Amino acid sequence: MLVNGESGNLIGMRDRGLLYGDGVFRTLCVRGGQPQHWLLHYQKLQQDCVALGIACPDFDLLSEELASLLPQHSDAVYKLIVTRGQAARGYAPAPDAIPTRLWDVSPLPAYPASWAEQGVPLYLCALRLGEQPRLAGIKHLNRLENVLAAAEFSGNGAAEGLMLDAQGRVIEGTRSNVFLASAGRLLTPDLSRCGVAGVQRERVLAAAAELGLPCEVRDIALDELLAADEVFLCNSVFGLWPVARLGGRSWSEFTLTHKLRDLLENAA
Amino acid sequence: MLVNGESGNLIGMRDRGLLYGDGVFRTLCVRGGQPQHWLLHYQKLQQDCVALGIACPDFDLLSEELASLLPQHSDAVYKLIVTRGQAARGYAPAPDAIPTRLWDVSPLPAYPASWAEQGVPLYLCALRLGEQPRLAGIKHLNRLENVLAAAEFSGNGAAEGLMLDAQGRVIEGTRSNVFLASAGRLLTPDLSRCGVAGVQRERVLAAAAELGLPCEVRDIALDELLAADEVFLCNSVFGLWPVARLGGRSWSEFTLTHKLRDLLENAA
Repeated sequence: MLVNGESGNLIGMRDRGLLYGDGVFRTLCVRGGQPQHWLLHYQKLQQDCVALGIACPDFDLLSEELASLLPQHSDAVYKLIVTRGQAARGYAPAPDAIPTRLWDVSPLPAYPASWAEQGVPLYLCALRLGEQPRLAGIKHLNRLENVLAAAEFSGNGAAEGLMLDAQGRVIEGTRSNVFLASAGRLLTPDLSRCGVAGVQRERVLAAAAELGLPCEVRDIALDELLAADEVFLCNSVFGLWPVARLGGRSWSEFTLTHKLRDLLENAA
Repeated sequence: MLVNGESGNLIGMRDRGLLYGDGVFRTLCVRGGQPQHWLLHYQKLQQDCVALGIACPDFDLLSEELASLLPQHSDAVYKLIVTRGQAARGYAPAPDAIPTRLWDVSPLPAYPASWAEQGVPLYLCALRLGEQPRLAGIKHLNRLENVLAAAEFSGNGAAEGLMLDAQGRVIEGTRSNVFLASAGRLLTPDLSRCGVAGVQRERVLAAAAELGLPCEVRDIALDELLAADEVFLCNSVFGLWPVARLGGRSWSEFTLTHKLRDLLENAA
């Protein structure tokens, strides 16, 4: 682990990342010593920093730190956290705050092999996401909603939990984005009120365009998801997972999902 | 500063308080070596821990830690943070997580002497609070809304910022609760959708009851606040501040506010 470029795993308890969740993060995979889509992750990090008024560390600096970890951890999940830095007391950020950079490395998770092929059981979370347009889309450190939602299905066998907003619109998984395929077109929720817009979601949208597949980003009701031909989840760690079950509904045809997955994996 | 009872100011970067804002906090004053309303703060801490499923540290343990700091810091602001503790990767909390206990001490802030007597300038924040009934009322570590709101009026002379919800209802200050006095009765916003229910708010409600002052906790529109006879803010550090100005509206009579303040200070 790296803390501001130095080997270590401790941060100051006055760091605004801890005090207020005042920071952003990325989760990416390294395979065979190659960081996957690092440039895309950096671009998202930068956008998220701009949205919060955090001075985003330079690409070159973060790339160097990342590169220094690769020899020891050639196949792993890398988490990068950038916080607004140390704070004097009070919510208002100092304009000259120096961001804190943290890198953490974990083993690649071992998911059941069947999940990528035969699909995953998805749980419908009772927790509804609150709407906050100022924070929507951003992968920030205020993640209590995800924590409470994940606690709902922990240990019940589900691979992921689906979260709706207060109006019952489909938004995302607790750690993934969600897509529907219906009648030869792709649908994914609008994330302008809540939710996190992940790098893998962007890659799926680009892959769909490449396949000439019409794709809509808009509000989606739960009924529309249940009526879809295929449903899949995506994130930067597991890639694409078809959904096999949600409540009483089950799916077993994953033609389009697998086609997209193959395209994305070959592009990696 | 104390970290799990030991002198220190560093925490592990895998603490869920940092990763997800998965924790709660209290801010209290110590004056003349006496912690102010520590029992009330502990009770709130406990309620907030229960709401998030965090195992709240014992009263005796925290009281001992607090007592150990008093000789060195007899007049100061104490901040207590309790996080869910260290994490394996992933949002789902481990049922056996051991909470992290952090104490931080800062000097009592030096506010302009006029503020408590002649009232404070209040700023109307553009940021609207999102609704999340599962987190409403809790003093948790997901405070990005407060950060963004505080950034709006930082350096413009305002003492505090007023936050509304998406529907334009009055909710709270960025670090305080808000009350209105109109026609001999007290009003304060319902905090069941968003906002933090502070200890000082509870004390004001109790003091009002003691004075035989009718008090309503309900939705309040901004117009109703602007039409109020008196408006005041409260928190555990500054006590009670009358509001002197908000936008074009100004107030100069603070009879009820000062009466409540005197009652609260004598009860301290």
